[in-house]
Amino acid sequence: MSALRYELLARSRSHGARLGRVHTPHGSFDTPAFMPVGTRASVKGIVPHWVAQSGAQILLANTYHLLLRPGADLVARRGGLHRFMNWSGPILTDSGGYQAYSMADLNAVDDDGVTFKSIVDGSSIRLTPERATQVQNLLGADIIMAFDDCPPAQPRPNADATATAAAKTDRRLDRVVRRDRVLDPAEFRRRLDVANERTLRWLQRCVDAHQRPHDQALFAIVQGGTDLDRRAWCAQRIRDFDLPGYAIGGVAVGEPPDQIARVVRATAPLLPEDRPRYLMGVGYERDLLLAVQAGVDMFDCVLPTRNGRNANAFTRAGQIRLRNQQYAEDDRPIDPGCDCHACDPAAHGWTTPDQRPFTRAYLRHLFMVGEMLGPILVSLHNLRHFQRFMSDVRASIPTDDWAGLLARWPVARGDDAPAGPIAHAGGVLPTPPGDH
Amino acid sequence: MSALRYELLARSRSHGARLGRVHTPHGSFDTPAFMPVGTRASVKGIVPHWVAQSGAQILLANTYHLLLRPGADLVARRGGLHRFMNWSGPILTDSGGYQAYSMADLNAVDDDGVTFKSIVDGSSIRLTPERATQVQNLLGADIIMAFDDCPPAQPRPNADATATAAAKTDRRLDRVVRRDRVLDPAEFRRRLDVANERTLRWLQRCVDAHQRPHDQALFAIVQGGTDLDRRAWCAQRIRDFDLPGYAIGGVAVGEPPDQIARVVRATAPLLPEDRPRYLMGVGYERDLLLAVQAGVDMFDCVLPTRNGRNANAFTRAGQIRLRNQQYAEDDRPIDPGCDCHACDPAAHGWTTPDQRPFTRAYLRHLFMVGEMLGPILVSLHNLRHFQRFMSDVRASIPTDDWAGLLARWPVARGDDAPAGPIAHAGGVLPTPPGDH
Repeated sequence: MSALRYELLARSRSHGARLGRVHTPHGSFDTPAFMPVGTRASVKGIVPHWVAQSGAQILLANTYHLLLRPGADLVARRGGLHRFMNWSGPILTDSGGYQAYSMADLNAVDDDGVTFKSIVDGSSIRLTPERATQVQNLLGADIIMAFDDCPPAQPRPNADATATAAAKTDRRLDRVVRRDRVLDPAEFRRRLDVANERTLRWLQRCVDAHQRPHDQALFAIVQGGTDLDRRAWCAQRIRDFDLPGYAIGGVAVGEPPDQIARVVRATAPLLPEDRPRYLMGVGYERDLLLAVQAGVDMFDCVLPTRNGRNANAFTRAGQIRLRNQQYAEDDRPIDPGCDCHACDPAAHGWTTPDQRPFTRAYLRHLFMVGEMLGPILVSLHNLRHFQRFMSDVRASIPTDDWAGLLARWPVARGDDAPAGPIAHAGGVLPTPPGDH
Repeated sequence: MSALRYELLARSRSHGARLGRVHTPHGSFDTPAFMPVGTRASVKGIVPHWVAQSGAQILLANTYHLLLRPGADLVARRGGLHRFMNWSGPILTDSGGYQAYSMADLNAVDDDGVTFKSIVDGSSIRLTPERATQVQNLLGADIIMAFDDCPPAQPRPNADATATAAAKTDRRLDRVVRRDRVLDPAEFRRRLDVANERTLRWLQRCVDAHQRPHDQALFAIVQGGTDLDRRAWCAQRIRDFDLPGYAIGGVAVGEPPDQIARVVRATAPLLPEDRPRYLMGVGYERDLLLAVQAGVDMFDCVLPTRNGRNANAFTRAGQIRLRNQQYAEDDRPIDPGCDCHACDPAAHGWTTPDQRPFTRAYLRHLFMVGEMLGPILVSLHNLRHFQRFMSDVRASIPTDDWAGLLARWPVARGDDAPAGPIAHAGGVLPTPPGDH
């Protein structure tokens, strides 16, 4: 008996896009779904009530971070993650593997698991499929992820330029790419095969270790890098496990955008039609749309909050950087027509009937003087932006009116998005300025 | 014609306490009133709607900070402070003088005004009575303060110990006391007289410079240090100006608590009965109660937000430091029985019907990992704590049941408050950790 049920509601006639609903022990969420990231059991700066008001129906939390602090046992004694963080809807936890690879300065992968140094106190921490599953059982999320071996992207000639571009949107990428460049191509292919085989063996160990299949749905993860044959091999093998959901991992870890599109388009259709499909750590609006059209149902990304904390506001026409001088006397809301708390506080019953939008001029001021209300309001706006976009994407699936969607969301055409790879965003960057 | 009207509603039979209401162009507020501090046009981390929900009816903003960034002209072009920061209720601005003295590393006071170095870019800034009034006219608060010469506290034998204690609650105090100690007693008395005379002369210049008496009420400030004769002299002189309100300044700037009580008890009754009386920068619950009983109507203090940002939560029984290990597994709310957003989210319609309090364990976790939701929730609680206290103080005035008040608010007995002077808190500390 599974903890999760996927209900297919409609299909696009022109693409692989699916409209659906996923039912969990903590309620349902509509798909395609965008999950905000609550790395350390908190969506940064936003109370759970506002996260829900933004339209988010499911959150992601990071096992790696919660394992370090406050510890999974403590969370379990508090009644689990939902009660601990006061979020009564569905939650998904990752396995911690990706962070163990990408964040830890020192890590050692072997056939049994990963050993890494804690970013908190430098102590040595061991994650294995069994331990990652046990920790997720303790945290108690509705969806838990298999502990996989996520290989870095393949080195390529313009790795320097790409690494720089990537670092702008996600400093981790830079690290991943740099580390990767010590491998020669043949060694890299061997690494990919080892990772793929490990992912399969570790999946079996996760299934065996899983103590709560009745109320926690374990998702498997397809690896295989940008090699479509390896992706297909992995997808076929993990399908045999007959799990309640499937994810595409190892995407947007440093490879160019066209490779990402190629991998997602090839891999999504290989996953079971009657289970939710989750593309991990993606991304910008254009990336979400591309993946939805390939048949993906679930996404997570830290972009709304990370960019919001740094004064980058998403609009239907593209991102605006609110620290820029040009906004110093701009009395417009971030995105006229947006119904978020910052752009339209009156719609949320805030204060007086004449409550006005928080202006770009005021938000810029808050960022220039380091007031935390700036990160709060822009994060709130960005969260709503992504939920409004996904809501419109869902509405476009039965009508198949994708031209209409792009007219309403020019940003999804991709003209505005930063050059370089899709932003992978597991929520694990060193704290940026203005983060606390 | 005055921009402000004070309505006396009831008096205590046993003390000087007065229940009243102050009417301004942006609405009324009940007195005794506690004003949260929105130093840079934002109550740190708290949206204006929540500030209002906490029960606050009037805010204080700091002229000094707003003059530096974003500049008073820019605020005026945005339609003034109320529109700029989205707060439709009454606002009070200070004159900037206190910060110019206490914050600037280099300042020079002369008979015409103060010259100080900007904390932002080191540029030289000049504040005079005319300029301080002009800036406040541009900001557009309902109540503006006269530009005064605020002398530091008198040096005393145990200045070292006191400075240390003071520095714990307010690092500025330390600086004030240290600077003060270069003066010998005779020189100090001369400085006090100079300050008193300047305050009077400058008040006349503020009155003459004030361009908006029809919609901005100018308050005068009594100085005189801990010398009751000088206080009386100053109070008598400023009464002659027949202004809409009067403040007691230069209190809680480093002097011992018994001196503060002595000054407030002696000075408040010297101020006009039919005008609001404002004790600047005070303080803890016991200090508020003492001053209310002496006949003071208005208070401001950064304690709720500053302490909240640093994990210090106010409860009816005293402050608790949420970073302490003892709260790691404490599933109680900050203050059981409190109706704030953090202690009783369900009362605010947050999320689901089974919404639970945010626990001490969860809040501690947020602070330990540097998540800004911690400062937000504890600031929110602390703001509500002070408003609930003041609401109960107001309710106690007509009934004169002060014993009942102290039974409900043991903290106001003062047993818990830190040793040393009352915390003066103009909102001007260097940003503490976790502030952004």
